[in-house]
Amino acid sequence: MMHKVILIPDSFKGTMSSMKICDILSDAVRRHFPCCEVVSIPVADGGEGMADCFLKAVGGKRITVTAQNPFGEPIETFYSVLPDQKTAVIETAAVIGLPLVENKKNPLTASTYGVGELIRHAVDRGCNQILLGLGGSSTNDAGTGMAAALGVRFFDCEGTAFVPVGGTLSRVTRIDASNARAYLRNVHVTAMCDVENPLYGETGAAFVFGPQKGADPETVKLLDGNLRALCKTIHTSLGPDLSSLPGGGAAGGLGAGAVAFLGGHLMAGIEAVLDIVRFDALLAGADLVITGEGRIDAQSVRGKVISGVAKRAKRQDTPVVAIVGDIEEGAEQLYESGLTAVFSINKKAVPFSQARLTCENDLAFTADALMRILKATASR
Amino acid sequence: MMHKVILIPDSFKGTMSSMKICDILSDAVRRHFPCCEVVSIPVADGGEGMADCFLKAVGGKRITVTAQNPFGEPIETFYSVLPDQKTAVIETAAVIGLPLVENKKNPLTASTYGVGELIRHAVDRGCNQILLGLGGSSTNDAGTGMAAALGVRFFDCEGTAFVPVGGTLSRVTRIDASNARAYLRNVHVTAMCDVENPLYGETGAAFVFGPQKGADPETVKLLDGNLRALCKTIHTSLGPDLSSLPGGGAAGGLGAGAVAFLGGHLMAGIEAVLDIVRFDALLAGADLVITGEGRIDAQSVRGKVISGVAKRAKRQDTPVVAIVGDIEEGAEQLYESGLTAVFSINKKAVPFSQARLTCENDLAFTADALMRILKATASR
Repeated sequence: MMHKVILIPDSFKGTMSSMKICDILSDAVRRHFPCCEVVSIPVADGGEGMADCFLKAVGGKRITVTAQNPFGEPIETFYSVLPDQKTAVIETAAVIGLPLVENKKNPLTASTYGVGELIRHAVDRGCNQILLGLGGSSTNDAGTGMAAALGVRFFDCEGTAFVPVGGTLSRVTRIDASNARAYLRNVHVTAMCDVENPLYGETGAAFVFGPQKGADPETVKLLDGNLRALCKTIHTSLGPDLSSLPGGGAAGGLGAGAVAFLGGHLMAGIEAVLDIVRFDALLAGADLVITGEGRIDAQSVRGKVISGVAKRAKRQDTPVVAIVGDIEEGAEQLYESGLTAVFSINKKAVPFSQARLTCENDLAFTADALMRILKATASR
Repeated sequence: MMHKVILIPDSFKGTMSSMKICDILSDAVRRHFPCCEVVSIPVADGGEGMADCFLKAVGGKRITVTAQNPFGEPIETFYSVLPDQKTAVIETAAVIGLPLVENKKNPLTASTYGVGELIRHAVDRGCNQILLGLGGSSTNDAGTGMAAALGVRFFDCEGTAFVPVGGTLSRVTRIDASNARAYLRNVHVTAMCDVENPLYGETGAAFVFGPQKGADPETVKLLDGNLRALCKTIHTSLGPDLSSLPGGGAAGGLGAGAVAFLGGHLMAGIEAVLDIVRFDALLAGADLVITGEGRIDAQSVRGKVISGVAKRAKRQDTPVVAIVGDIEEGAEQLYESGLTAVFSINKKAVPFSQARLTCENDLAFTADALMRILKATASR
């Protein structure tokens, strides 16, 4: 029988949030196994909704703060503090997100300063673990704004300190991070990112993500050159060579900046989530884990939630079912990671434009069918 | 664990035969439960492939015979005799099927005479159970040709005996079935049909199936009037009133003809299949039944296989999973019949024209996923 089920889905991009998916899955489990313990861990591994997902998964509270949007205007925003009172979960998108500046996107001038303000607020209230979700930013300043808000000083060739933005990164000739390092001495910063892009180059921040932030081809080249120049200055001023750091290009280079300026480290979002919710401990006594994503294939970046969950569950021999939107070629390769089985919610051969309209019902139907067969065969 | 699984799928119309589906399902079961007994019962409930499906399910042999095609030309055809040596399985489509006359379809002149020849051959070799599959016929003669081949005599107003065809049914004024009844005294004829259409009228044989047999609107009306006239003559000459018999309109009225002229009865195809294969006895010790169809909904005629299987399995509390192509609105109503759960093989949100190209792989993937989760949870 089913005594404990863990629900840990990613969102289905463009259709359902992971919260909504948890609700639907939970209903299905309880309908057929009313005595079953259901643990819901909606995943938003770095992007919008992440702070709330953590609150749902482990509790804690939402802290409302005023901080600067990408163009220096004060806005009301928030972060979450988990029940240990030591861990702050900050969605960078909540203060420098693209949706906040939709009408005046400009990666040449957008700044991550507000992110630094949020970190400072959290540290000042006693947090020593900062989880930084990097999804959905509007900036391309390599986290220099964030760093400046935390005391890092950037100097131009004349020795004048300034707060760089995407368009002025190449003017930085020296960096002094000593104040920030002292301030953050006992603070661990973990940046959660789900891309592997390096800071600059053809697969870097500017070329890959610049256009959606409003950069035309010429601006992309300028931004890319600036990131490259800054990377050199970081190397000469601070030591590390971040030119090929996977994920350094996340959030307009905020990934690299978190490492260079805050002594932080980058982590796949799902791994951070699994650590924070103490997934390994939760697995004890669990009969089944249900995960999912909008789309599953052998290699896809989006496959990280499923493979991350499956790898840990495998160690404890717990079955993991993925309920997904589309199953792409090669998805069965994830069976080697520990995934037990994958089911699609597609009930009819219709194009996505049509399928998306019924996705909640389709998910409910599929989860129900799965619970039905597990219940019917469990007692035999 | 899984000790015995029964596979009893219908075909997925237009994509996969039930034989092929059994093979794919069987592979999936054996891959994960190598010691499991697998019973394959491919269903072709009346249509093409039925005779071979029975051979696969229960054994027996294929008898090759010469009989008349719908236009009186001798062709080589066949029927099956089951291991009891008493039961003959005859696909009417194998001798009067539409594909046999594709280029010269004519429901005014096409005759079921060849079907009668097959029955005679089977009876002469000792069969006393005739299973007649009614799917896919090219005729509209209400089985008068078949009846004539077995000794039924049809007379016109001048008392002249003749063999009617679709275009001449209204000329029949008297019917003498005594010779045929004597010949078939100890023979049970069961006509397997999966339509509920009556002999004539708006939902009758001519109106519903005439056009695909080559009838233009005027011919449809003529054929319908003739069926109506014959029905009256059957009533006055032989007794029964078949005007509203459900299924009487199957195979161009062959359904009604089998009842009127041969003393046969109509049966939903799946029920006959379940009886012949002794499904109730097979269920003993079965852990799971897997059925399926191309499309499942609450009411659809095509839903008969799944609901027929589910009803019987329910009585013995055996779980039944349906693996299907499309799941339509209301399909969950079949859960009340005893169906445990239904899964679609659709892995991606793409239109049918695209999905059909990968249907075998998609079925294999879905069956594999199901076996994987059942195996992983069974041992817990």
